[in-house]
This record gives sequence, structure tokens and C-alpha cells, in this order.
Amino acid sequence: MGSQEQVLEVARRARQAAAELAPLPRAVKDAALHAIADALVARSGEIVEANAGDVARAREAGTSEYMIDRLSLTDDRVAAIAAAVRHVASLPDPVGESVRGYTLPNGLELRQVRVPLGVVGIIYEGRPNVTVDAAALTLKSGNAVLLRGSSSAYDSNTALVEVMRGALADVAGGVPADAIQLVPGRDRDSVKHLMRARGLVDVLIPRGGASLINSVVEESTVPVIETGTGNCHVYVDAAADLDMAVDILVNAKTQRPSVCNAAETVLVHRDIADAFLPRALRALGEKGVTVHGDAAVRAHAGEGATVVEATDEDWGTEYLSLDLAAAVVDSLDAAVAHIRRYGSAHTEAIVTTSQSAARRFTALVDSAAVMVNASTRFTDGEEFGFGAEIGISTQKLHARGPMGLPELTSTKYVVTGEGHLKGV
Amino acid sequence: MGSQEQVLEVARRARQAAAELAPLPRAVKDAALHAIADALVARSGEIVEANAGDVARAREAGTSEYMIDRLSLTDDRVAAIAAAVRHVASLPDPVGESVRGYTLPNGLELRQVRVPLGVVGIIYEGRPNVTVDAAALTLKSGNAVLLRGSSSAYDSNTALVEVMRGALADVAGGVPADAIQLVPGRDRDSVKHLMRARGLVDVLIPRGGASLINSVVEESTVPVIETGTGNCHVYVDAAADLDMAVDILVNAKTQRPSVCNAAETVLVHRDIADAFLPRALRALGEKGVTVHGDAAVRAHAGEGATVVEATDEDWGTEYLSLDLAAAVVDSLDAAVAHIRRYGSAHTEAIVTTSQSAARRFTALVDSAAVMVNASTRFTDGEEFGFGAEIGISTQKLHARGPMGLPELTSTKYVVTGEGHLKGV
Repeated sequence: MGSQEQVLEVARRARQAAAELAPLPRAVKDAALHAIADALVARSGEIVEANAGDVARAREAGTSEYMIDRLSLTDDRVAAIAAAVRHVASLPDPVGESVRGYTLPNGLELRQVRVPLGVVGIIYEGRPNVTVDAAALTLKSGNAVLLRGSSSAYDSNTALVEVMRGALADVAGGVPADAIQLVPGRDRDSVKHLMRARGLVDVLIPRGGASLINSVVEESTVPVIETGTGNCHVYVDAAADLDMAVDILVNAKTQRPSVCNAAETVLVHRDIADAFLPRALRALGEKGVTVHGDAAVRAHAGEGATVVEATDEDWGTEYLSLDLAAAVVDSLDAAVAHIRRYGSAHTEAIVTTSQSAARRFTALVDSAAVMVNASTRFTDGEEFGFGAEIGISTQKLHARGPMGLPELTSTKYVVTGEGHLKGV
Repeated sequence: MGSQEQVLEVARRARQAAAELAPLPRAVKDAALHAIADALVARSGEIVEANAGDVARAREAGTSEYMIDRLSLTDDRVAAIAAAVRHVASLPDPVGESVRGYTLPNGLELRQVRVPLGVVGIIYEGRPNVTVDAAALTLKSGNAVLLRGSSSAYDSNTALVEVMRGALADVAGGVPADAIQLVPGRDRDSVKHLMRARGLVDVLIPRGGASLINSVVEESTVPVIETGTGNCHVYVDAAADLDMAVDILVNAKTQRPSVCNAAETVLVHRDIADAFLPRALRALGEKGVTVHGDAAVRAHAGEGATVVEATDEDWGTEYLSLDLAAAVVDSLDAAVAHIRRYGSAHTEAIVTTSQSAARRFTALVDSAAVMVNASTRFTDGEEFGFGAEIGISTQKLHARGPMGLPELTSTKYVVTGEGHLKGV
């Protein structure tokens, strides 16, 4: 399983499927999505049974209960996954949208229209719901997908993909089953072959931790969209409303610590540190947060949260837990410099009542999202009104921030003349 | 020269310069561009002298006169380069443009605004005017640039960059000289180090032949935008206007054969081949074109152009010369299949009077630009009304087709609330 030839073979079939998918009208794609949702519900028993095998093997291997929970499927969870597919069907189709259009001085009519990317590879970790989410979003945007989930969910993913492909067979209008394929093989080699399938695969989107993303970026010759590494900062300005600052910090850190838009570092302006830190440490302590502080922060230890000494490593760490790095800075510009040096350019927030501070912070911070007086947790495709997201890009090319359906497209120019010749 | 440490050092300086450039208002950037144009004209003598050395060395090395011409600078050419810089100054500044903006149901105000990419590396061949064009376009779009031209133009490029950097020193408002830097070293190693400067360089844009582009794509860990490989097709449909088809084909092939948007292959519908090919071969023959034909085309040999036997290699060749591959196809769909198999997804044209044929061709052909009844030669930033272009992207991510100033930017989301917390 997972030999280079096998991976290239599924990629070639995906390429052919992508060519057939691209011109399909929205109605056909939506019908396919509803057929998939129906089939997931109807065949929920098979899916849950396949998943039970993965879960049992994970338990035997000593996997943590948290990871077991992420891996597990029930009838209710499958129904929720099917509902998400129907929601994708309800979203506008980005393909064919005219993003630019005018008539040139020589009479040529130019239109720039959205087209599918082609073949999209998704490399992801534990949760099997990603298998269906990613398939639905890529199908809706006219792309063929190659799914490469965690080997721990291989049987679950195999069942889910089989159900989805089976559903496509019955849809009128010709949605090719090869639009949705699992990359064969449980071993790491199959990921390698996928990363070298340049010319067959148009883009790879790794979803997961920093080490997965870095290894894909390093080894892939297929273009990559980096997603989801979030070392997010909250900067409490000298002119902050202290109540608001405490609330935003606690929300950003503790509302769901395991996700990429949770805060990992707080930077506090020196002028407000003595007023802010005692209150913040108390509030963080109530939520069980351990603060990794610099000397100025540690001077307030004992006022609530557990405070330990921050090392240089802490500033660059995405904890994804109830830990928070904390430093006092001399100025807004010093906060910006800290963020530029240590941040992952995902989301940073400023809490301030000063319009000029907000303006300077949003201008100087070079991250996918900059929040003014709002929690970092709002960086999310649903929250931004995109209806759904395939991930949050932390790179600057192609798409930055939450990626919805339009971000799964490219464009082409269609230029219409009546015998137009150049230079005459 | 060109050690890894030296290349990383210029990249680090570029990164710092990019941070200073990003927030600069248009007026400062435009003043810098005019200062550059002034300095190029004022110091034209030095530039032409440095160029004379490059030209002499190229002559000694037996370089073709065509390449010598591309390399050579005169006072008039320097003046034209300066005029192009002033033209870039006249174009709108893409930075700060709001591309999306609305208020979310919870009252958060969301804006997606254009920001510079950061540090852009340009790898290019012979012509020294690219040095200045690329610097002007990247500066206008708020980016720092690392220029890596051909070693044959090293002294010319060194002089041009020195003049541009000198001009920046006198501009009010603080445009850092390190916004424009030459990658040190004439050797290939310096290109390698540039390609591995991930984290310091945000994007590499290779401009040049297929082999340059392929080697960058293969080796770079920095994201790459592929540009300029054009195996462009003209498809003459069964319903074509024959006069128009001959004119478009001759224009697309011969008006400037050495550029990426020139046609390299003509595909002729079988139903019209006997009527079209004799006229086409005559017209191509008058322009000195050698046709590499399949058997059906060769059956018309003797009617004008020199016709030789096409091999499989011809279908994938970007001649950039007065050569043209030619085949007869059974249908529009067969033409599309040929293009998908052998094309480079740059520009393809259909000549037809049939609305349904035009619609099907533009829907099925997956290239950066699709022309209907117009020459492939129109795929160009100037022609498309972009004012200028940094290159023509043949990839699907980030930018596709001619890249103007907006394509040299990314975006960020600025989200403003009044203490908004998630989930409460």
C-alpha cells in the first residue's frame, strides 16, 4: 500500500475527475452534496463500526482520552457531519463568479472569472469529520480532493470515503466518483509521494500541528498553503479599558485553549502594568492558567495565577493549553517588535481606547488578522461570515486568514474580440 | 561573493526594510520613484559605462547579437527605463485598498485590506531593464526586493542598483535604501541560498525560460510564482471565419515570436482543414514560418510554408522562433484534450463564429487566458489595462495571468469591536 505508483495513480484519476468537475453547474454539485449527506446518515452504522476498530486500536496503543474523543464517531456525530455537508450545499458556488470585467480601449471584452484550483490534497490529523468537511468544500468549489488523514483513523476514513463515493455514483449529471479519493497507504511514504506529485496535484493544504506543516513545507514540490499555527498575542495598551482587557485576555486564553486562535502571549504596556497585572493574574488564576512571566510580571506573582519564569522559548511557543506567556513592554512599538520576532502571523489583538494606538497597531502588525478590542478567538471562517472554512492560512500567498470557498479557487481571463490583432 | 551568510544578510536587511516600507503613504513611495528616475537620467553615463564592460565580455564569450542587443544599454534606453519608473509612480497604490468590508451580526466590523507581500525575490535573465522595472513595481507595492539577474549583466545591475539606492537616500519620509538590493555573487550558489531563505523571503518570482523556472520550483523552499512559459495554442474551429483565422494565426505566431504569448501550435478542425490549411500555409510561408505538421497537415505541404514532420516533442515545445506545430483534430473536445495534454496553461485562442463553440472552449480550457477571436499576443498586463506587469503567472495559486501591482500584495483582516468575547 502507498507505493509511489499507487499514489500517482490516484492523483492521475483525480486530475481527470477535476477536468470533468470544473464545468459542472451548481445544481449538480449541490445534488451530489445532498446525496452524500443522505448516504452518511443511511450508512451511519457501517461508519461507526469501522470507527470502533480505529478507536479500539488507539486505546490499545495508550492514546489519551482527549485524542480518543477526537477520533470517535457516533450516530449523532455522523448526523452532525451530514448536516454540515448540507450547509455547504446551501452556500454560494464560487466557480464562474466574475471578479473583474471591462471593455478595453481597443474593444476587447475582458472578464476574470473564478475557476476551480483542480486537484487539492489535504493532509490532516486525527479527526475523521475533516474527511467529510474537506470533501464537501472541495466538491462545492469544483475541485477533486485527495485525502490523507491520520493513519489512526484509516479505517474510519476508508468507510467515510466509500460512502461518499457510493453516493456520487447515483447523482444525475455526472459527478465522477474519483473526485473524492483517499490516498492509499497508512505509512508516511504515501505522504511523501503526494508531496512530489507536482503537475498532478495543484495545491497541498496541511492541517495540523507545526511539525506536520513544517515537514510538508520543507519537502513538497507541490505548492503548499500553510494553515493553523497560531502563536497569538493580546497587547494591553497604556490606554486600555482594564475591565475589557481582563475579559478579552481571559476569553482569548481560556474559552477554548486547544485551538489555533487562542492567545498564547500577553504583552502589557509598562504604564498600565501595576494596575492591570494583579487583576489579570487573579482572573487567569480562577481559570487555572499558568503564567510564564518575565521579571516584571513575576513581581506580581502571588496575586492569583501560578507564575513561573519565562524562558526565551516561551515567547515562540504555541501552548494549546492553559499556559500563557506574559511580558511587560515599554511601548506599543516594542509590542509590535516582539510580535514580529516571535509571532506566527496568525492573529494579534490590541485592547485600547486610543484611536491612534489602534491605528498604529493595525498598520504595523503584519498578521493574517488584527483585532481591536475583540478576542483573538474570532478569527474563524464561520465568525467572519464565510459560511465554512477549510483552514486558516498563515502565509501571504494566495489566501491569508480563514479560507472559505472562494479561496479554493483560482481565476482565468476570458477575452473576447472580433478578430483583434496585436500591433495593427 | 555569494556565500550563504552574505545572501542571508541581505535578506535580513530586506526584511527590516520591508517592515519600514509597509506603512509608508503613497506620496513618499511616488517621490522615491521620481527620485530614482531622476537619478537614472542624471547618472546615465556611469550606467552605460558599466554596461559596456558586460557587453564586451559577452562579445568575447561569443554571445549572439540578439542576446547582445537585449543586454545593451544606451542613454536613450536608460531614459526609457526612467520613463517607465515615472509611469509606475502614476499608477494607483494597491496597499491599503479595502477588498472586503462589512459589519458582522454581532457588531464586529471586518475589513480585508491589501498589504505588501514583504520581501520579493526576482530571478531573471539578460535584460538589465528588468532590474529597474522590478524594483519600481515592488517599491510601489510596498515590498522590499532582492534582485538576482544574469551574471552576464552583473556590472550593469550593480550600477543600476547603486544609482537607485543612492536616490532613495535623499527622499524625505524614510524609504530605506535596503528596500532595493542586489543578491551578491555571480555564481549559481547565490541563487541556491536565496531559494532556501524561507522565513526571510516571502516569494520568489523567476522570470525567464522553462529551465530556470523549473529549477527554482524544484529547489526552492520559499514559495514560488511561476511565470512566462508559454506553449500557446490557436484552435481554428469548424465554424471559423477563415480570413480572421489566418490573420489571428499569423499575428499570434509572427508579430513577435520570441515572447511567451506568441502561438506555438495551431489545431485545425477536420471539417475546415482543406479550406483553411492552404491559405494558412501560404500566409505563414510569406512570413518565413516553418510548420511542424502531422500527416493531415503535411498533405498540404508545397502550398507555401516549409512543412516538416512533427514529432511528439513538437507538441510540447515552446519554440520562441518562426516555427509552428500544426495538427488536425476531429473536434473541439479533441483540441481541448490536446491542449490539456501538451499546453503550459498560458494562453489559448479559439477562432469561431459559433457562440456555443466559444462557450464550450472557454469553459473547458484551463489556462490563465482564453481568447475568443483575438490573438494570443494580447495576454499582457499593459494590454489588460493593469498599467504594468511584473510577469505572467502560469500557476493557479495567488495570481494567474498578467501580474500587476495588486498581485504583488497580500491582505490582512482588521476586525474592530468594543470588547467582543467569543461564546458569550
